[in-house]
Amino acid sequence: MTPLKNNIFLRALLREPVPYTPVWLMRQAGRYLPEYRQVRAQAGSFMALAQNPELACEVTLQPLRRFGLDAAILFSDILTVPDAMGLGLGFVEGEGPRFQTPVRTESEVQALAVPDMDKLRYVFDAVSLIRRELDGQVPLIGFSGSPWTLACYMVEGCGSRDYRQIKTMLYQRPDLLHRILEINAQAVRQYLNAQIQAGAQAVMVFDSWGGVLADGLFQQFSLAYTRRVFEGLIREHEGRRIPAIVFTKGGAQWIEDIAASGCDAVGLDWTANLAQARRRVGDRVALQGNLDPMALFGGDQAIRSEARRVIDDFGPVGKGGHVFNLGHGISQFTPPEAVLSLVDEVHAYSRRV
Amino acid sequence: MTPLKNNIFLRALLREPVPYTPVWLMRQAGRYLPEYRQVRAQAGSFMALAQNPELACEVTLQPLRRFGLDAAILFSDILTVPDAMGLGLGFVEGEGPRFQTPVRTESEVQALAVPDMDKLRYVFDAVSLIRRELDGQVPLIGFSGSPWTLACYMVEGCGSRDYRQIKTMLYQRPDLLHRILEINAQAVRQYLNAQIQAGAQAVMVFDSWGGVLADGLFQQFSLAYTRRVFEGLIREHEGRRIPAIVFTKGGAQWIEDIAASGCDAVGLDWTANLAQARRRVGDRVALQGNLDPMALFGGDQAIRSEARRVIDDFGPVGKGGHVFNLGHGISQFTPPEAVLSLVDEVHAYSRRV
Repeated sequence: MTPLKNNIFLRALLREPVPYTPVWLMRQAGRYLPEYRQVRAQAGSFMALAQNPELACEVTLQPLRRFGLDAAILFSDILTVPDAMGLGLGFVEGEGPRFQTPVRTESEVQALAVPDMDKLRYVFDAVSLIRRELDGQVPLIGFSGSPWTLACYMVEGCGSRDYRQIKTMLYQRPDLLHRILEINAQAVRQYLNAQIQAGAQAVMVFDSWGGVLADGLFQQFSLAYTRRVFEGLIREHEGRRIPAIVFTKGGAQWIEDIAASGCDAVGLDWTANLAQARRRVGDRVALQGNLDPMALFGGDQAIRSEARRVIDDFGPVGKGGHVFNLGHGISQFTPPEAVLSLVDEVHAYSRRV
Repeated sequence: MTPLKNNIFLRALLREPVPYTPVWLMRQAGRYLPEYRQVRAQAGSFMALAQNPELACEVTLQPLRRFGLDAAILFSDILTVPDAMGLGLGFVEGEGPRFQTPVRTESEVQALAVPDMDKLRYVFDAVSLIRRELDGQVPLIGFSGSPWTLACYMVEGCGSRDYRQIKTMLYQRPDLLHRILEINAQAVRQYLNAQIQAGAQAVMVFDSWGGVLADGLFQQFSLAYTRRVFEGLIREHEGRRIPAIVFTKGGAQWIEDIAASGCDAVGLDWTANLAQARRRVGDRVALQGNLDPMALFGGDQAIRSEARRVIDDFGPVGKGGHVFNLGHGISQFTPPEAVLSLVDEVHAYSRRV
């Protein structure tokens, strides 16, 4: 494999000295880019795009051609794993993902099993292809939904405002939910390891819905299973440490617990205060985040001043430990020029301070 | 006015000794009760119900006939104030509230003014009537949306997932947003004061959307204006202190700031840890919360054990300072028997410990 030309992102994650703050954006390959919408239309459906390694590679690389981002992230969906379990993933236009057969009854839970990773071959093929095409330009991030977040979709069947189905299961039949989570943890571990073997140089667990759990239950039903994923993760590959990031939307108040999960970095949303977060976790983990994606609608000046605020909040740049990102995925309505301003300011300002 | 037969709620809010933990539930008068649905059908529309003092009084009292709750809360809507500003509130079935004329442009903001409180007479009439009908059984809580939460609806025009309209204004034209918030703060203060004069014995500010703001901006655009409301609030009436509660969904990490806003109590959602919250604010304010409303779907045993967990988390009952509540409004799908179990357990267990 070609050596990396830009490893600032990996060094920041491992809290090694860096010349500037690296930046990438959650959902950076996506609908806000006209060239993405073109490939998406060509593919016919979101899943057809995700399941075609050549097209997935193409959209992964698109934002890197426009912006000086410091990492690429595999284009895929967090629901590929439950789809491979046979739940029948579909996307309803304007409504988001939906499973044909949600998992709710005791017999449905009993029938659940870790999927054959061969069904996810298209993901690993995309990872290999992207690594080859990147040619060492920047590192490639692999990812998965967290066991809890996958379970939310598997039990609810689709997005939810109140998580009533899965929480009813949690309070009434915690044994069933623990069984789902145990299977998910095994599946996610195998899935991430296969991505690492295919060439992912860092991995990220998206615990998008951990923040809907009550304090105490978050630790039992979300974080405990993310920890199990990390316990069995390949941590060194091609002679290099594979950093693991975990992002719990709305999880800032549990940062000490999250930092102790076995990850190298904790992603934070924009409600968190980075200075406070750093005081709380010290040098134990790096932090990733945390600009409000809506700040990208503020125009050049506001984008730059908000970017500086995030960098100042974190504190000293040179020691590493901070990866600049949004606090959530970029909005599909974002003007691409906004990302140009952001990346420029993060690099220029962090080099200066 | 008849003296109060049960003032445990008020005493807990003022951190005075109590024999047990008082309990009430956000949205306790609502769709989960068949008798509410009957009155709602009779009224024809949600706003027709809210604007009819007799019917509003009737639905306010309904949950008290079923459950041994320690407080009543005025049945109304948080959007009555912007409606009185002339924004044209309507409710679309299955979609929630919508304003005909949202406030977005400079001229729309300039045209905005504190409404004549006479347009909200129906609210104050309802408060007087409820106080009379309660006949001292339990205290009556008046309420309002926070200046920021009202502004969210006024600018977005309806509920939102990303708050793109108001955040675009915040980042591009903070001056316009500050003007809206200043008007809202004045209006909310007058509105709550008129409720107090009509007989409300405690008031609550619902900052339902404060938690969508970035750290730093929450303090500037939400909390600063809630503080202005409290600064001009009538704090004594009928010879008694009027306690003020503020509830910011998702605001647990800002609890020290919120506690310093001039309130007597801080409401917390279920993601907060009550023990930690108490350590952070000490004896400065009382705490209200914080059971996940979804726990009410767990069946009798789970409801009781989760209720005990919340009480244990808070700590010593006898000194006051804790009002038991949900961490958000009760779900319309809740079986009413669940509330019976909850109220029973809160009272019985807190008397025992």
